[in-house]
Amino acid sequence: MIIESPIEKNLSSSMRISITTSLASALHSSAKTTRSLSRPKTLIPFSLSTMAAATATETPAPGAPAAPAANAATAAGREAFRQSVVNTLERRLFYIPSFKIYRGVAGLYDYGPPGCAVKSNVLSFWRQHFVLEEGMLEVDCPCVTPEVVLKASGHVDKFTDLMVKDEKTGTCYRADHLLKDFCKDKLDKEPNLAPEKVAELNHVIATLDDMSAEQLGAKIKEYGITAPETKNQLSDPYPFNLMFQTSIGPTGLSTGYMRPETAQGIFVNFKDLYYYNGNKLPFAAAQIGQAFRNEISPRQGLLRVREFTLAEIEHFVDPEDKSHPKFSDVADLKFLMFPREEQLTGKSSTTLRLGDAVANGTINNETLGYFIGRVYLFLTRLGIEKDRLRFRQHLPNEMAHYAADCWDAEIECSYGWIECVGIADRSAYDLKAHTEKSGVALVAAEKFAEPREVEKLVITPSKKDLGLAFKGNQKMVLEALEAMSEAEALEMKSKLESNGEAEFQVCTLNKTVTITNKMVSINKEKKKEHQRVFTPSVIEPSFGIGRIIYCLYEHCFYTRAGKTEDEQLNVFGFPPLVAPIKCTVFPLVKNEQFDTVARAISKELTASGISHIIDVTGTSIGKRYARTDEIGVPLAVTVDSTTTVTIRERDSKSQVRVKIAEVASTVKRLVEGQSTWGDIQWDYPAAHGSPEEENNPEENA
Amino acid sequence: MIIESPIEKNLSSSMRISITTSLASALHSSAKTTRSLSRPKTLIPFSLSTMAAATATETPAPGAPAAPAANAATAAGREAFRQSVVNTLERRLFYIPSFKIYRGVAGLYDYGPPGCAVKSNVLSFWRQHFVLEEGMLEVDCPCVTPEVVLKASGHVDKFTDLMVKDEKTGTCYRADHLLKDFCKDKLDKEPNLAPEKVAELNHVIATLDDMSAEQLGAKIKEYGITAPETKNQLSDPYPFNLMFQTSIGPTGLSTGYMRPETAQGIFVNFKDLYYYNGNKLPFAAAQIGQAFRNEISPRQGLLRVREFTLAEIEHFVDPEDKSHPKFSDVADLKFLMFPREEQLTGKSSTTLRLGDAVANGTINNETLGYFIGRVYLFLTRLGIEKDRLRFRQHLPNEMAHYAADCWDAEIECSYGWIECVGIADRSAYDLKAHTEKSGVALVAAEKFAEPREVEKLVITPSKKDLGLAFKGNQKMVLEALEAMSEAEALEMKSKLESNGEAEFQVCTLNKTVTITNKMVSINKEKKKEHQRVFTPSVIEPSFGIGRIIYCLYEHCFYTRAGKTEDEQLNVFGFPPLVAPIKCTVFPLVKNEQFDTVARAISKELTASGISHIIDVTGTSIGKRYARTDEIGVPLAVTVDSTTTVTIRERDSKSQVRVKIAEVASTVKRLVEGQSTWGDIQWDYPAAHGSPEEENNPEENA
Repeated sequence: MIIESPIEKNLSSSMRISITTSLASALHSSAKTTRSLSRPKTLIPFSLSTMAAATATETPAPGAPAAPAANAATAAGREAFRQSVVNTLERRLFYIPSFKIYRGVAGLYDYGPPGCAVKSNVLSFWRQHFVLEEGMLEVDCPCVTPEVVLKASGHVDKFTDLMVKDEKTGTCYRADHLLKDFCKDKLDKEPNLAPEKVAELNHVIATLDDMSAEQLGAKIKEYGITAPETKNQLSDPYPFNLMFQTSIGPTGLSTGYMRPETAQGIFVNFKDLYYYNGNKLPFAAAQIGQAFRNEISPRQGLLRVREFTLAEIEHFVDPEDKSHPKFSDVADLKFLMFPREEQLTGKSSTTLRLGDAVANGTINNETLGYFIGRVYLFLTRLGIEKDRLRFRQHLPNEMAHYAADCWDAEIECSYGWIECVGIADRSAYDLKAHTEKSGVALVAAEKFAEPREVEKLVITPSKKDLGLAFKGNQKMVLEALEAMSEAEALEMKSKLESNGEAEFQVCTLNKTVTITNKMVSINKEKKKEHQRVFTPSVIEPSFGIGRIIYCLYEHCFYTRAGKTEDEQLNVFGFPPLVAPIKCTVFPLVKNEQFDTVARAISKELTASGISHIIDVTGTSIGKRYARTDEIGVPLAVTVDSTTTVTIRERDSKSQVRVKIAEVASTVKRLVEGQSTWGDIQWDYPAAHGSPEEENNPEENA
Repeated sequence: MIIESPIEKNLSSSMRISITTSLASALHSSAKTTRSLSRPKTLIPFSLSTMAAATATETPAPGAPAAPAANAATAAGREAFRQSVVNTLERRLFYIPSFKIYRGVAGLYDYGPPGCAVKSNVLSFWRQHFVLEEGMLEVDCPCVTPEVVLKASGHVDKFTDLMVKDEKTGTCYRADHLLKDFCKDKLDKEPNLAPEKVAELNHVIATLDDMSAEQLGAKIKEYGITAPETKNQLSDPYPFNLMFQTSIGPTGLSTGYMRPETAQGIFVNFKDLYYYNGNKLPFAAAQIGQAFRNEISPRQGLLRVREFTLAEIEHFVDPEDKSHPKFSDVADLKFLMFPREEQLTGKSSTTLRLGDAVANGTINNETLGYFIGRVYLFLTRLGIEKDRLRFRQHLPNEMAHYAADCWDAEIECSYGWIECVGIADRSAYDLKAHTEKSGVALVAAEKFAEPREVEKLVITPSKKDLGLAFKGNQKMVLEALEAMSEAEALEMKSKLESNGEAEFQVCTLNKTVTITNKMVSINKEKKKEHQRVFTPSVIEPSFGIGRIIYCLYEHCFYTRAGKTEDEQLNVFGFPPLVAPIKCTVFPLVKNEQFDTVARAISKELTASGISHIIDVTGTSIGKRYARTDEIGVPLAVTVDSTTTVTIRERDSKSQVRVKIAEVASTVKRLVEGQSTWGDIQWDYPAAHGSPEEENNPEENA
C-alpha cells in the first residue's frame, strides 16, 4: 500500500502500456513466488523508452547482423517477434507441448532434442560457475515431500492463489486474472472513459496483488464480472493451494506433496551439511531439480508452467558478518540496477557500479552483492543481452517481513520484464521454522578463542508453587514462563519486585494468570561462555531455468535475408557454450571419399566430447547451412577435399580453410572459449574459393 | 510354470542360499518391473561358488590392495561388509535419509555432496557414452502425467503389487513379502523339517511371483500367517497400484500420476522425433529423469526406493532389419552371460563372445546385442567389476508376451545379483498401444525406390445387407469383419464359397452371428505400393541409476590397515571418471607461503574444470589423506615447497614430484583418462623424500 500514490501519480494515458508490464511482471518466477509465499507485487512503472533504448543500444556480436527486434517497441511488433521465435522453437522441437497426441495438458512442456541440449548446457555451466567455482555442497533430494516439511515452511497454509468457480459448470479461474482482464479490456476498448474511471481501473490493476479474497470478491461483484465463456455467475474467491497433493505409502493416511521448490531439501539437511563443512560458516549448498506448481489456469506458454527446473543456492552466513572474501572480484562490475528508491520515485533503472551499490547501502550487504554480481556474469555469459537485464530491488510490500533485502534479475523479452532469478537475504526465517517444527536445533556456533563473560537473564520457575497454584495447568504456565523474551522477563521482574505479583498471559491456556514472587525467580547472572550459538542467515539465489532459457531464445533469435529479399532465414545466435550442437560436418557433395573424411572428423569430434551432427544427404549446402543456423549450430565443417576442409562461422558466414587433422582441436578451442573466431581467422586462410551458400555452383547438386 | 521342475531339481539343503538370491533378485530394478508391468520372476538358482569365485578372481587395480570382500562368501560376511560400506556412505553424506529431522520417510533418500557428485558424473558419462556417441535424440518430459497416457501403457490397470492389511490396525504389507518371510524363517529356524516340507517351502518361494491374489491368499491362510507386529488377522490380498496419484488443475476432475518410468514420454513423441530424424529409421531417443513408485513397504535401503533416477533409451528399428552398423565394434567383447538355457538346466553363467552369442541366436538380434555390449562397456568403465557383472536372459515366463527377447545386466553385491539395467526388445507393443488409444498413427514408412506390386486381401462389407440383417448391431458386425486377420478372412472366404454362409463370433456383441455371401466380399487384389508402412520395433535399455551407483559403491570399497594394525582405514577406489572430487590440495603445514601456492593451484584447477577441495587446516597430512581416501578422491597435491609439489595416488599411495606450473595439466590428463598413473610415474620423479602419511615428521604439526 505504501507505493500506491507514486504509482498513481505516474498513471497517464501514455502510461497505459504499464498494464502490459504489470502483466509481464505478474509472470513472477515460480522461484520467487514460491519463496515469498504470496502473490507478487507488480507495481513497477514501465517506460516505453526502456525497451526502445534497450533495443537501440543493443550491441550485436562481432560479425552478427543488426539487432532483430527493431520493431519490438510496439505491442504488435513484440507479438509478431514472439510468434517467429515460438514457431521456430516448436517446428525445430526445442520444445513440444507434452502429451500432444492426447491433446496435451496446459502448462506442461517437453524439451525436444535441441531444447534438451540447451538445458543441459545451461545446467552444466551453472554447476561450473556456482557449485565448482564457489565450492558449494550440492545435494539432490526427492520431489515427493511429506506434509510436515511443507507445513513448517508455510506452503501448506499459504502457497495459494485466489480462485473463483463458474457456479454452473464448475470451471475454475484465477480471481485476479479475471479482474485484471476486465480492467484491461475496458481500458483498451473504451477510449472515451472518464479520466477518473481510467484512474480507477489502473488503480485496481496496480493494487490487485495486495487484495484480500473479500476485496477481490467485492470488485468482481461491483463490476458484474461473470465467467468468460458461459457468462454464468461466479463463486466468491477462495484460496486454492498450488501444490500437487498425493499420498505416500498404501494406507492413504500420509499426505505428501510434489515439492514447490527445492530449497526445503537443503534447509532440513542444514545440520549434516554444516558438520560436513567442518562446522564452519559461511558455506553454500545448492540443488538442481524439478519443482511443481498446480496452476489454476496456466498462461504465457513457457513462462508459467506446472512443472519446471529450479536451481537454488542457500548460502548460510553469520548474521553478524555478511562480508564476502571474493567481493572485490565483482565490485567493479557495472550494470543496470533498479533500486527501491528509483521505483518509488518513478525513475527508470540505472547503471551502477556494484561496489558502490553495496558501499552506499543500496544493496544490503557484501554477500548479497557478491551473488548479484555472479548472477550477472552467469546470465550474460549465457548470452543474455546486458541492456535487457536489470536487477530490481523488491519494494517493502513485496518482501516477506523477515527478509533483509531482495533483488530480482529481470530479463526483458516480448512479454515485458520477466523475473528469472530471485536473490534474497531471507535472514534466519527458514532454519528457525524447521527448528521449531522438528525440535532439531538448526544452529551454528562460533567458538571463542577465550571464554567470554556474559550477563544472562535466568528464569527459574518453582514447580512446587506453580503446581499448588495451577494444578493441571502447571505445565503450560511453566513453559510460558520459560519462553518469555528478555524484555518480558525484565518487565515481570520489576512488577514482582514492586507489587509482589504480576498478571501473565498464557497463550496455551488462552487466559491471564497471576504470578507471585514465590512462583518464579528472575535474575541476571554472570556466566562464562565458550561459544556463541546462533541461527545462520541464509542468502538465496534461486534460478528459474526454463524462464532463463526462454529469454535466451528471444535474445539470440534473429532473421536475415536468404537468397532472395523475400526469403527470411531464422538464426539462433547462441554462444557456443549453450548451442545445442556445436558443429556440423557436411560432405559438399555425395561422394565416397568425402563421406569417409566426414566420418573420420566426426569420430575425432566425438572423442573430444563435442556434440555434432553429420549430414551426408545430398541437399544443397546452402540449405544445410540454413537448417543448422536455425537451431543455432555455431560452426559448420564442409568437406570439399581430402586434405583440407572449410569451417564456417554461423553469424558472420565467413569461412577459413583448415587441415583435416586440425579440425577437431580448432573446433574445441572455439567451443570451449579458448579462441575467438577472430583468432581462428588470424591463424588460418580465409576460404574465399570455398563453397558459400549464396553462390555455390554445387547448390542443386 | 515351465521352469518349476528344473529349479526344484536343484533345490537341496546346500541350495538354501538360493533364498537369499531369490530375495536379492526380487530387488528387480524398478526400470524393468515398470516395463514388464508384472512382478519379477526370480527363479534363478544361485551358487555360493559364483560369489566365491568372483571375489577370488577379482583383479585389483594396479597398486590397489587385495580384494576386500574376502569373506563375502558367508551371509554374515556379506552383512558385515555391507554395514561398513553403508556406515561410511552415511557418515560421509554420500546419502542421507530424506527429511531426517522429521524422522524421515521410508524409501526416500537424498544424495549428499559426494553422492550428488558421483551421480552427476555417472549421468555425464552416460550422456557421453550413449547420447553423444550414438547421436541419440535426448528429450526431457514432465513427471506429472495425465491418466490417459498411463491407461494406454497399461500402468493404470496393471502396475500393481498384491497387498494385505492388518484387519485391526490397517497396516499394509506386501502379500508376497509376508509369505516369503514366513517360508525363509521356517527354513532358517527349523533345521529338522521334513525334506518334503523343505521342498514345499522352497517351491513356494520359487513360484511366489507367479501366484495370483487367490493363490497367495490361500497360502497365507494355509500357513496361518498373521500381521508381523500385532499377530492380527490379515485381509485377503488385493492389488495396490504403485503410482503416486494426484490431480491436475484445480477442478479435481483430471487425474494424473507421477510417471513410473520415463519411456512413455518418448513413445508419445515418436511422430515428432521420427520427423526430426528426417523420417528415417533406425534412431534412438533417450531420457534421464525422475520416476516414482509408491512402494507398499520399501526394503533394502538404497535399492528399492520410492523415487529414483532412470536413464532410458528407446531405439526404434525396422522389425524386418535389426542389424546394427556398429555391431562389429563390440562383437569381440567377452563377458559373463546367463542365457535362458543355462538357467533352465541349472548351470551357471558363462563367458561368451558377444559376436558368437548373436550369431548362434542366443541373443535375438544384432541391435539388442550391440546395446548389451555398450552397456557392458558403460558399467565396467564406471568401475563395476567384470567378474561380478552378468547379463541374464529373461525366462519365457518373465517376459511380456509381446517381447522378442530381454536381458538384464545384473551386478553382484552383498544383496546378491541385482538387476541394474534391463535391455529389452519390446517389439511394436508400446507404439501400437498409443496409436490405438490416441488415434494418432505412430508408424514409419519405407519408401520403395520403385513401386512394388503386392497382393492384398481386401475385405468389403456390404452396409446395406448388414443393416438389413443386424439393424442396430450393424456397426459392430461391420467393424468385426474389417478387423479380421488375414487367416480369419481366408477361412471365412472358403466357408462362404463352399456353404454360402459362415458362423462369425462378434466379441463386441458377445455372440455368434451368421454371415452370408451377400454381406461381405473377400478378395485378393493386386495393388501397386510406393511404400511400406509399419510400426517400428523398439529396443529399450533402461538404467536404474541409483542401483548402479549403490553397486559401484560396494565394488569400489575396501579397507586397509592404518598406522596400527587395529586401525582400519576405509577407501573408495573410484575411477577418476566417477570420483566425486578429483583432487585435494593440502599445504603440508600451516604457512602463508604454502597457502598462497595452494590457492594458486586451486585457481588453475578451477579454470580447468576439475572439482577439488583445498584443506588448509593444520590437521596431520596422514589424517587429511585418510579423510579424502574415504570419499574416494584419487589424487592429492601436497604443497611442501614453493617450486614443486607432490602428487599422491590414492590406491598405491605412491607419489611423484611435479613443478607447480604443471600440476593442473597433469591432474587433468589423469582425470580425463589421457594418462595413467604409470605414465605419470614415468614422466616425473618419485617423491621418496616427500611427506608420506606413515612416516611424516610433520604428522602432528
